[in-house]
Amino acid sequence: MIGFDEIRKLAQVTPSKILLLVMDGIGGLPHPDTGKTELETANTPNLDKLAAESICGMTYTVSPGITPGSAPGHMSLFGYDPLAYQFGRGIVEALGLDIEVGPGDVVVRGNFCTVDDDGIITDRRAGRIPTEESKGLCDILNSGVSVPGVQVDFFAGKDHRFVLRLRGRGLSHHVADTDPQHEGMRPLAPESLDSSATRTAQIAAEIVSQASALLKEKHPANMFLLRGFSEHPDYPSISDIYGLTPACIAPYPMYRGVSRVVGMDILPAGETLQDEITALKKNYDSYDYFFLHYKKTDAKGEDGNFDGKVQAIEDYDRLLPSILELNPDVVIVTGDHSTPAGLAGHSWHTIPVLLKARYCRRDDVTAYSEKACLRGGLGVFPAMELMPLAMANALKLNKFGA
Amino acid sequence: MIGFDEIRKLAQVTPSKILLLVMDGIGGLPHPDTGKTELETANTPNLDKLAAESICGMTYTVSPGITPGSAPGHMSLFGYDPLAYQFGRGIVEALGLDIEVGPGDVVVRGNFCTVDDDGIITDRRAGRIPTEESKGLCDILNSGVSVPGVQVDFFAGKDHRFVLRLRGRGLSHHVADTDPQHEGMRPLAPESLDSSATRTAQIAAEIVSQASALLKEKHPANMFLLRGFSEHPDYPSISDIYGLTPACIAPYPMYRGVSRVVGMDILPAGETLQDEITALKKNYDSYDYFFLHYKKTDAKGEDGNFDGKVQAIEDYDRLLPSILELNPDVVIVTGDHSTPAGLAGHSWHTIPVLLKARYCRRDDVTAYSEKACLRGGLGVFPAMELMPLAMANALKLNKFGA
Repeated sequence: MIGFDEIRKLAQVTPSKILLLVMDGIGGLPHPDTGKTELETANTPNLDKLAAESICGMTYTVSPGITPGSAPGHMSLFGYDPLAYQFGRGIVEALGLDIEVGPGDVVVRGNFCTVDDDGIITDRRAGRIPTEESKGLCDILNSGVSVPGVQVDFFAGKDHRFVLRLRGRGLSHHVADTDPQHEGMRPLAPESLDSSATRTAQIAAEIVSQASALLKEKHPANMFLLRGFSEHPDYPSISDIYGLTPACIAPYPMYRGVSRVVGMDILPAGETLQDEITALKKNYDSYDYFFLHYKKTDAKGEDGNFDGKVQAIEDYDRLLPSILELNPDVVIVTGDHSTPAGLAGHSWHTIPVLLKARYCRRDDVTAYSEKACLRGGLGVFPAMELMPLAMANALKLNKFGA
Repeated sequence: MIGFDEIRKLAQVTPSKILLLVMDGIGGLPHPDTGKTELETANTPNLDKLAAESICGMTYTVSPGITPGSAPGHMSLFGYDPLAYQFGRGIVEALGLDIEVGPGDVVVRGNFCTVDDDGIITDRRAGRIPTEESKGLCDILNSGVSVPGVQVDFFAGKDHRFVLRLRGRGLSHHVADTDPQHEGMRPLAPESLDSSATRTAQIAAEIVSQASALLKEKHPANMFLLRGFSEHPDYPSISDIYGLTPACIAPYPMYRGVSRVVGMDILPAGETLQDEITALKKNYDSYDYFFLHYKKTDAKGEDGNFDGKVQAIEDYDRLLPSILELNPDVVIVTGDHSTPAGLAGHSWHTIPVLLKARYCRRDDVTAYSEKACLRGGLGVFPAMELMPLAMANALKLNKFGA
């Protein structure tokens, strides 16, 4: 695929607007009773009408067979090879919370969790305690945890999540997660992954030890797990590569975090899809690229709630016309991965995609679903090709070569 | 994709013959009144019959979303990654005109253009003045332009085009175009792109200055624009990689130029498709790979002439049987890019392709068109895979690995 150096030479600024609508985890699997996926079950007259006016296809965001996390899934949709442009969970969460991360800082994503008297994890998410409660716990940790020579800060995130930031000299992010990823096990020790991180791993162990004592009586949030020790990535921005002025509208911190890494402006998104659309309309004249993220499809899929995901799709479909009335030059609807309710988690399955634009060369697809989009003109393709396709359809790319 | 080093080990010489038929810019977009593309509108019984006997698909020659120039488009069809095997406009044009280019020479493609009294470009192509007129102007420039220490030669090309060759010591091709790509602007100064080219840029500026004075009264060709300062590329040949003995039949210099870079013999092609077919038949026994280029489909598309492009397709279809009666072992029909009349220029859209051979594994496609070929057995794929497919279908590739 064409690289950023070449794209940079071809990209031109024009008034045309690109709108990337991500329904998180949109791809699904057939319900065993009906043989229909969530998308095929949902009544989606507006998505189907849009598909009929579009070129469609099936995409994968990382590589065939690979189940993407949210960050690589979105990096791919933003045009970045997710295998080349990786970054830790900690940095994504930190950026999404507007936490300042400087050179040399190490940030880690934390989950408050529940452990039993033997220290065995019984709930990796501490019953998803509310954000307010996390804030109180972070206050306690910020007052009580202290390691010489290192500034230690805890920042509450959404629900049971938080970010731990270490600031000091000679820190390294090459430290392994303490989250064993399964209940019924003990938290792991923060092991150094190479010799550069020996001291950082010791610091992390000391923090875990002090925090464990401070949280002891705070059931269900009587312990925490750390994932994704990371540093600030220095990646080229969407603006630098494509000459776009990009904006992110996403209520959840993770997606804002990834968007900030690629240089998007983060707009106040509110909480609901209606809030997001209001934000889109309010800011429509100020940007030429919008990423609008919808979480509910993924959340219901992760819960294994087939009907809930169908409902989330129908909710989206109902509001779609009020997005489309802006008449953007290029509209893309897709997901960052599939989250079949039947698997109750992210999956490797390809994701339906539609692209509508004046010169998109429509195909015969008349529905937005897995089976329908498979017959589309885009074929089955890696999602990082979407960005050049969006640019081309917005007439923002000059010819390559003589 | 498999690389040249591996292909080289697998390729074997056999008597079977491969015929690559390129209809330049063949892919299109639906006419707003009929919803049918140029190919879908044209009456093409012979292409359709051939498609029915073929395996079909949709291809892109550079990368999804990228609008290819002619050179990268053809490099891809010849099996070369067009992003890895690039070369400047100047060298392609020079090679197509049989201009000798040696190591250290710098060649540039020029367009005679029209400027007004203020030096503003009013026509980038000087009304496409005839070749004869360009020859006269090049004679004037060859007599009148003189720079110490450098041999300066102008060679007339087709219509308003010419090639400028600089021969001397210490030249560099890292000089920016003087063509601003848009009318209503002044020609740009030939700026050096790095310190190696400071002197070459000065030489180019001196040439432009002298030429400008010589052309002052030659309206409409009273100025020129330079594009693609370049050197001779040293790329592996088709013969070296595939063991083929390849020949090019193309009336236009650009396509002969690219063919010469990859080591094809350039056969006298005449002017018309009938001339080309005559050349093919005359030389059929002497080569095992033929590239036959048809320009009219692209030219009409570039003119925005939908009906003209339809006519050009039908003209081709009518003569196709006289090509096929040679009964080549492998026939490929495709384009180097799409040139939809609706866009009046090259575009990023995928290109229909058919491949007929004894063992090609036919699909259900019964027409050569964008929608029909999308249902083909080749799927949507990068065009540089065509060459190994052609070799395989010609039974010229041994098994890979034990």
